[in-house]
Amino acid sequence: MSSLGRLSTTCFDRGCFPKPQVERRSSSVRIFPIRCSVASAPPQSLQVSDSKAHQSEKYRIGVLGASGYTGSEIIRLLANHPYFEITLMTADRKAGQPIGSVFPHLVTKDLPDLVAVKDAEFGDVDAVFCCLPHGTTQEIIKGLPNSLKVVDLSADFRLRDLGEYEEWYGQPHRAPDLQKEAVYGLTEIYRKEIQAARLVANPGCYPTSIQLPLVPLIKARLIEVKNIIIDSKSGVSGAGRGAKEANLYTEIAEGIHSYGITRHRHMPEIEQGLTDASGERVTVSFTPHLMPMSRGMQSTIYVEMAPGVSTEDLYQHLKNFYEKEEFVVLLKNKEVPHTRHVRGSNYCLLNVFPDRIPGRAIIVSVIDNLVKGASGQALQNLNLMMGIPENTGLLNLPLFP
Amino acid sequence: MSSLGRLSTTCFDRGCFPKPQVERRSSSVRIFPIRCSVASAPPQSLQVSDSKAHQSEKYRIGVLGASGYTGSEIIRLLANHPYFEITLMTADRKAGQPIGSVFPHLVTKDLPDLVAVKDAEFGDVDAVFCCLPHGTTQEIIKGLPNSLKVVDLSADFRLRDLGEYEEWYGQPHRAPDLQKEAVYGLTEIYRKEIQAARLVANPGCYPTSIQLPLVPLIKARLIEVKNIIIDSKSGVSGAGRGAKEANLYTEIAEGIHSYGITRHRHMPEIEQGLTDASGERVTVSFTPHLMPMSRGMQSTIYVEMAPGVSTEDLYQHLKNFYEKEEFVVLLKNKEVPHTRHVRGSNYCLLNVFPDRIPGRAIIVSVIDNLVKGASGQALQNLNLMMGIPENTGLLNLPLFP
Amino acid sequence: MSSLGRLSTTCFDRGCFPKPQVERRSSSVRIFPIRCSVASAPPQSLQVSDSKAHQSEKYRIGVLGASGYTGSEIIRLLANHPYFEITLMTADRKAGQPIGSVFPHLVTKDLPDLVAVKDAEFGDVDAVFCCLPHGTTQEIIKGLPNSLKVVDLSADFRLRDLGEYEEWYGQPHRAPDLQKEAVYGLTEIYRKEIQAARLVANPGCYPTSIQLPLVPLIKARLIEVKNIIIDSKSGVSGAGRGAKEANLYTEIAEGIHSYGITRHRHMPEIEQGLTDASGERVTVSFTPHLMPMSRGMQSTIYVEMAPGVSTEDLYQHLKNFYEKEEFVVLLKNKEVPHTRHVRGSNYCLLNVFPDRIPGRAIIVSVIDNLVKGASGQALQNLNLMMGIPENTGLLNLPLFP
Amino acid sequence: MSSLGRLSTTCFDRGCFPKPQVERRSSSVRIFPIRCSVASAPPQSLQVSDSKAHQSEKYRIGVLGASGYTGSEIIRLLANHPYFEITLMTADRKAGQPIGSVFPHLVTKDLPDLVAVKDAEFGDVDAVFCCLPHGTTQEIIKGLPNSLKVVDLSADFRLRDLGEYEEWYGQPHRAPDLQKEAVYGLTEIYRKEIQAARLVANPGCYPTSIQLPLVPLIKARLIEVKNIIIDSKSGVSGAGRGAKEANLYTEIAEGIHSYGITRHRHMPEIEQGLTDASGERVTVSFTPHLMPMSRGMQSTIYVEMAPGVSTEDLYQHLKNFYEKEEFVVLLKNKEVPHTRHVRGSNYCLLNVFPDRIPGRAIIVSVIDNLVKGASGQALQNLNLMMGIPENTGLLNLPLFP
Repeated sequence: MSSLGRLSTTCFDRGCFPKPQVERRSSSVRIFPIRCSVASAPPQSLQVSDSKAHQSEKYRIGVLGASGYTGSEIIRLLANHPYFEITLMTADRKAGQPIGSVFPHLVTKDLPDLVAVKDAEFGDVDAVFCCLPHGTTQEIIKGLPNSLKVVDLSADFRLRDLGEYEEWYGQPHRAPDLQKEAVYGLTEIYRKEIQAARLVANPGCYPTSIQLPLVPLIKARLIEVKNIIIDSKSGVSGAGRGAKEANLYTEIAEGIHSYGITRHRHMPEIEQGLTDASGERVTVSFTPHLMPMSRGMQSTIYVEMAPGVSTEDLYQHLKNFYEKEEFVVLLKNKEVPHTRHVRGSNYCLLNVFPDRIPGRAIIVSVIDNLVKGASGQALQNLNLMMGIPENTGLLNLPLFP
Repeated sequence: MSSLGRLSTTCFDRGCFPKPQVERRSSSVRIFPIRCSVASAPPQSLQVSDSKAHQSEKYRIGVLGASGYTGSEIIRLLANHPYFEITLMTADRKAGQPIGSVFPHLVTKDLPDLVAVKDAEFGDVDAVFCCLPHGTTQEIIKGLPNSLKVVDLSADFRLRDLGEYEEWYGQPHRAPDLQKEAVYGLTEIYRKEIQAARLVANPGCYPTSIQLPLVPLIKARLIEVKNIIIDSKSGVSGAGRGAKEANLYTEIAEGIHSYGITRHRHMPEIEQGLTDASGERVTVSFTPHLMPMSRGMQSTIYVEMAPGVSTEDLYQHLKNFYEKEEFVVLLKNKEVPHTRHVRGSNYCLLNVFPDRIPGRAIIVSVIDNLVKGASGQALQNLNLMMGIPENTGLLNLPLFP
Repeated sequence: MSSLGRLSTTCFDRGCFPKPQVERRSSSVRIFPIRCSVASAPPQSLQVSDSKAHQSEKYRIGVLGASGYTGSEIIRLLANHPYFEITLMTADRKAGQPIGSVFPHLVTKDLPDLVAVKDAEFGDVDAVFCCLPHGTTQEIIKGLPNSLKVVDLSADFRLRDLGEYEEWYGQPHRAPDLQKEAVYGLTEIYRKEIQAARLVANPGCYPTSIQLPLVPLIKARLIEVKNIIIDSKSGVSGAGRGAKEANLYTEIAEGIHSYGITRHRHMPEIEQGLTDASGERVTVSFTPHLMPMSRGMQSTIYVEMAPGVSTEDLYQHLKNFYEKEEFVVLLKNKEVPHTRHVRGSNYCLLNVFPDRIPGRAIIVSVIDNLVKGASGQALQNLNLMMGIPENTGLLNLPLFP
Repeated sequence: MSSLGRLSTTCFDRGCFPKPQVERRSSSVRIFPIRCSVASAPPQSLQVSDSKAHQSEKYRIGVLGASGYTGSEIIRLLANHPYFEITLMTADRKAGQPIGSVFPHLVTKDLPDLVAVKDAEFGDVDAVFCCLPHGTTQEIIKGLPNSLKVVDLSADFRLRDLGEYEEWYGQPHRAPDLQKEAVYGLTEIYRKEIQAARLVANPGCYPTSIQLPLVPLIKARLIEVKNIIIDSKSGVSGAGRGAKEANLYTEIAEGIHSYGITRHRHMPEIEQGLTDASGERVTVSFTPHLMPMSRGMQSTIYVEMAPGVSTEDLYQHLKNFYEKEEFVVLLKNKEVPHTRHVRGSNYCLLNVFPDRIPGRAIIVSVIDNLVKGASGQALQNLNLMMGIPENTGLLNLPLFP
């Protein structure tokens, strides 16, 4: 059972019911040989079936940097994925340990032990999620076999301008050729390019929440690109699992503060995306805030509309633009997006509100920073790159309350 | 495509890979005609398939009381269920509204609008989850067609002793015959009876977290039934969505308190279960605590061991007892269960620790009160009652952080 | 012991060491006869003294609406006040109860029982804090003896334009004459007027956090009044103690959302204050957010500077303006105000940051919404009105963590 | 102005109105020369007074280890203390910094900069609070001038049995003579000894919450000392400010877990105290839990009553025992103590409940772990040691919500 056609005939998994987007994806299906034959041997009965037999025929996936939050989130999302199977997980400081001792919430899952990245057998995997810190990432991805598909969740391949990379990250880029190859993984905007990509630079969480509403509006010239004011609020998991005094429970609970005002490293990524959409250089005001929630991100965006444009025009344009998208959802008139209503899911909820100042509008966008803002979008991208429905493994509803 | 056999041959959904428990379940399969033919028509391609065509052939499920937290949790769990489809949702005070206006986290899901229970067409459903308040529940279930399978999440059918019901709930029981028919739905303990049941009384959250570890130990006479001290800690969702001053964020955040000391309504349910296991009347000390988490429950249980018994004996017995269970997991030696490691999932994590006082042991058990403590176990039960793998729809990993 | 001089000779209480502002306050001392003779009878020893004897000679204070959060906060702040003694507390629905049964954190304090407002003996009090809902408040204050000093924490006397009041509060104003008499109680800006006032309209929490930084900058023409964008984040206590589904722990924890976008009732109060400062009509963009903290408020304010003005100019002007103020503190260069660093205290922390967009600046202001944003500022005002040091009772440091 | 009598005549500060306990304290007054002449120079007016002039005549206090939470809490409590003035603060890794850069919530307070402990001038202080980690503490206290009064908040001088110290802390005790001199600072139980002490070992937080209810009951032989089961729940500040992964916001929020089961280092301290009360060796079951609150601690204690004793007897005995105490408060019948109702205050709230199992009782005790469980009790002790009213600086009401 190895043909794509046969696979699809047996497919009734929820992952197989995307909104029809045949034309966009069809080419990518051929790029990569389908190894997935998960349903080849019919289970003998409804109650008994042996998943193990099939697992070796799923795509073999590696997770580099599995001891951080984005890594563990990839593992969570892949746990029931019908076509992907994790066969490699690296974590240098935890090498030799089972994942359940690093992340006890994964203890019930049968997974390979962690290995050091230098000991990883990359010949045995078809694709990797790279969840390593920026800097390190470039060298490691450079060393991977060229046959591997890679989704990189670090910032290393997001900025096309290497000078800008050096300016914001304090070191020269060490893999400029790979940078040229990398496709920016904002799925709904760059789907076609992602389907054909080998290396995808997965967007940052803030840039995702900001570009999803702004790029269509800027492209359509509905808003001015001057004086875009972005006030974002993030949960703490965005800061990672590193032990820092500033992220202790006692330092975060029951309070809020701005940080990295005008100096946050997502700034150049945001401006690059908006500049691409606009065609002219865009400079934004961007102030992130850290607040007591583990997951979640809201961007409240204050914009000037182009002359003669109304908030209703913005609303309609976004409605049309995202109408067929599964994960970007424009709420009904006046309904306010809440971060808690996307928790644990890959959704981005949006809405547009008239401002009290004439000519201005307020756009609100919410995501789960670890899902649509990181690992969920990464999976959405790898699904596309592997030629399978892009929503596979991503259809869990938000966890509320 | 209507035969069970054919269904199973196409089954590679994660829901179809339970631990083999053929002998237990096989009989139940025949009880209820399988209507589920979800995979009948092969999708035309990997990317495109029409799930709608199949939905009418899934089991049609009603959720009574869909505007509370256990109701919305049922909806969340069923969202990707391959054999169950929600075709009816009631909520008297929200009748006419779409679920997304009551629970915006469900806005992306295509579901029927809410109706008043009096307007519900029960002829069109195969089974219901009853998420109504105690008291009301009896009358409504009494009025349901006899052909319906029912899982009742209220307390109304949990207590066999109707006098005890009246004592703790302050009103006489109005459906004593149904009470006799009802099977207590502590899945891992009463699986066989549940498979054959038409009406299941789904256990309370505290009783679930307490009986899962204690029932096997009491049955095996490894612990004394006198002086069982249970100190439980619960998240706030257990109190429901009713607007009460005591459950405001400001009244709950950053604090803890005991409540209902010796008078909590789960008390008789706990004692009934332990008495059944023991054969003699058991009276326990049970003190619940309310603390700032939306989901989660820990029971810390202090027991005296029978003469000559060691904590290692308790550990081994629980290990053997739950070895083949998917959802009840005994952690490794000394590993401490955390509620946050089961959040959003159907798992119960357990462990046993030696006490400093000779002859005593400490047992820790954690669940998500809304999942294994309510809607997850309810789905586990309905799966069993409908003859499908009991883990179907329940394999999501916990959401952490 | 009734002369002011005598009182002051015994004063070493911390409340008596304000920053010297003699000239501003001296006149007010004569306005109201000093009844406070708290130190008249020398205690017999260091260890033993009888406070009761003196209490009747303190100012007698009434708290109307003592069962809400602003009421209980007044009680907390007055607990150790050397010149004020609570002799009357009203709460209609809790009449007859001791405060400790309504607010158990006050159980250790010896206070009069709650009475219904209609049963209150206003002849026995010198001043009242009115913590009642808007609407109700007007009628009640109208009925108070004219000799009473009143600080009203509701919105009823904040808006000078009665048409605007009716528009935003949905009912005509029923005490227009009192409205004319009322002084707006933004202490640092209107201190002189407050000292001479009989009725003070205590500012709202958002307006306090916004006007303290903006009023001086607008008066000095350092910032433009067009395109002022205010993104505020509030703790939940601002919503009061009423039982509402939306404010349940489960609905608030681990998330954030905007609310009342462009329609929050503090809007006209903010615009009135900024218009007064500017001399021309000011319209602002104001978007409040609700987030999981019981206390705290941050306003992040995005402004355009006047031509030729730098952020350093803004900083210096605020520094000079608030240099002698105890409660409004401009942090050092680049230090970011956190709400958790003012928790429980009357401080407002401010700072100014350059924006990335040339010509713009970002101003951050944090307060505790229940203290400087409500009861603390109310006490600061009543201190002034009674001719005692304005920081009396307000010198507790923030509670962190 | 140096006589005690004169001081007291001017005393109307709230700190000077303790419950009369003349006989207990009078002796201690002579032990230490009173330097405090805070009220010597009459302020010239009610509004203006110069506190600086007097500060040099207050007791000069050192805080060793001022960069941790117990250190900062000492500073908060002393901020308005009429007789104590902080003149020295040490923090080796933060030496040279102002306290406001380490704890921004203290930025408004005029305090000396931090110094390394090796550079501290101990000749210039009258007493120190030692907030250093155990181990380090012994050496440092050994090196202090003998004239200094010392309250040590570490565990180093709590255990009389040096073998036990070595067993639980993994190192031999290095100051055994000091250990002999040290008085255990559980204020309400050892007040007399504390008044006469030079070195006080301040109790741990768990031991405080447990001994306050149990010691009187054990002494009176009202409860059995076998099978005392203690289930405690603590806020996170008890774990200190050290950067540990386990204490990150994301690892703590929305969950609970037991830790250090039977192996917590407070165990021997608890057993020592109960053994002293009983006269026979007491072994208890003690299981602490970590939960999402910054401050607060509840101990739920399950006990067997002595034959013939009722819960009413326990209640009455505790009532009588603590009747005259300011900080230990037995609630009214059936009222449940909440940790949030003591937040930020020095109170311990207690109550006793009948258990469902005959002959057993449930005792609930709550404190703020940083106040009565650490720095507040430390200040209470130093007040006593210095001969001033023991409630001085400790009369702030809890901060709720």
